[in-house]
Amino acid sequence: MSTQQQNKATVTAGVLIIGNEILSGRTQDTNLNHIARSLGEWGIQVREARVVPDVEPHVVNSVNEMRATFDYVFTTGGIGPTHDDITADCIAAAFGVELVVSDEIAAVIQQRPAPADVMESRMRMARIPKGASLIANSTGGPQGFRIDNVFVMAGIPRVMQAMLENLEGELEGGAVVRSRSVSAYLGESQIAAALAEIQARYPDIDLGSYPFVRDNHYGASLVMRGTDPAQLDAMLEDVKAAIVAAGETPRDIVAE
Amino acid sequence: MSTQQQNKATVTAGVLIIGNEILSGRTQDTNLNHIARSLGEWGIQVREARVVPDVEPHVVNSVNEMRATFDYVFTTGGIGPTHDDITADCIAAAFGVELVVSDEIAAVIQQRPAPADVMESRMRMARIPKGASLIANSTGGPQGFRIDNVFVMAGIPRVMQAMLENLEGELEGGAVVRSRSVSAYLGESQIAAALAEIQARYPDIDLGSYPFVRDNHYGASLVMRGTDPAQLDAMLEDVKAAIVAAGETPRDIVAE
Repeated sequence: MSTQQQNKATVTAGVLIIGNEILSGRTQDTNLNHIARSLGEWGIQVREARVVPDVEPHVVNSVNEMRATFDYVFTTGGIGPTHDDITADCIAAAFGVELVVSDEIAAVIQQRPAPADVMESRMRMARIPKGASLIANSTGGPQGFRIDNVFVMAGIPRVMQAMLENLEGELEGGAVVRSRSVSAYLGESQIAAALAEIQARYPDIDLGSYPFVRDNHYGASLVMRGTDPAQLDAMLEDVKAAIVAAGETPRDIVAE
Repeated sequence: MSTQQQNKATVTAGVLIIGNEILSGRTQDTNLNHIARSLGEWGIQVREARVVPDVEPHVVNSVNEMRATFDYVFTTGGIGPTHDDITADCIAAAFGVELVVSDEIAAVIQQRPAPADVMESRMRMARIPKGASLIANSTGGPQGFRIDNVFVMAGIPRVMQAMLENLEGELEGGAVVRSRSVSAYLGESQIAAALAEIQARYPDIDLGSYPFVRDNHYGASLVMRGTDPAQLDAMLEDVKAAIVAAGETPRDIVAE
């Protein structure tokens, strides 16, 4: 695979979070946020995320819809050794291929000795869809895998992160989306008309307005996202001027 | 609307989180977790969540798919006064109805005086799809709205929460899913075979195994979810016995 290329067409991704524990509210997901930020730095834009239960048809349908829609799909969760870890089975079903044992994953698993029944359960993690390649796991545990444009990673955040960082060189990114942001203590409606005019003047930059409440004061963060730094800088000046015209002070200016 | 009914058939929900800021990684979503926990207590099970950008066809398609699939759909985000707040337009398009001005929301908006141009932007928040009813907003701001089985709420967590709590009496829940959980410092594979056997004996209870890393020790939380307390209690005893048989100590036992 080539390393990251600048100014290619837009490259998109979908994220599929597999796990009942997120849908029941027992666990707060943080993987989407980490994946979105990392991919963004590599020039890949997350366009949709789905959280689905550990139920085969549900996972299979979501994988097939997302891999047909986006350049890349990243899944988290369901690749452990227990009965409810069904992600490998689902990905194989989605691609219509059988599961095979990866000798390379088996070797990692067998490095740590265990009684026969424990080893048998652990070996469940060596099963990958036929034709898949591996995603290195620098925590020392079993690897994730890739088949076509679908990347299958662990659900534990630190293991998922260790897998994702190994993918940077393998993914082809497009133009990197940069951002400018500025905040002000004002109601969004005080500058809504000005923002709409500014947005119309810069059709290639996405201008978002995100209200917040801080110390019982209402405010708004104005965030500009796009690939052209000169346009971003010009738009930022216009938004700052709109804040000043509304009688407030531009704060927390960030360029990323 | 009737108040909550116990032991009705399963009642399901989908959650649709609308907002570029979640997909870019700028903002960590917490609304899904709050909605999932609240609905769970009311006997409504969240079966899928999607995060989609502020792009009309994307929102419209997701709303239409989810409202056909689940008993209820809850959306967050995109109902403010700025140009990027397009949720009301999208819901109207999804239902094939026009937007109308809600006199009741307009009255709330007009309570706070403002210059004409600011008021005009704010009045954007009074637009609701024809046929929608309102969701009270105890923060004092503009209301959310409901049309058929779709509930449209704000994106700011404290405003969303204020809207959601007003819905409790309006939603018909099914049997409430309860849980039992127990943790142990062991690798999941040490009890994977036992867990699979236990799961097979209790087909109506969902047994999930969630690995964790705490103070550099690997452990697993075993979580049982279902509607029958007697089965849950019996299954918990079996799981505890499996942990003891693996030479470890059951910890952090919780019944909810």
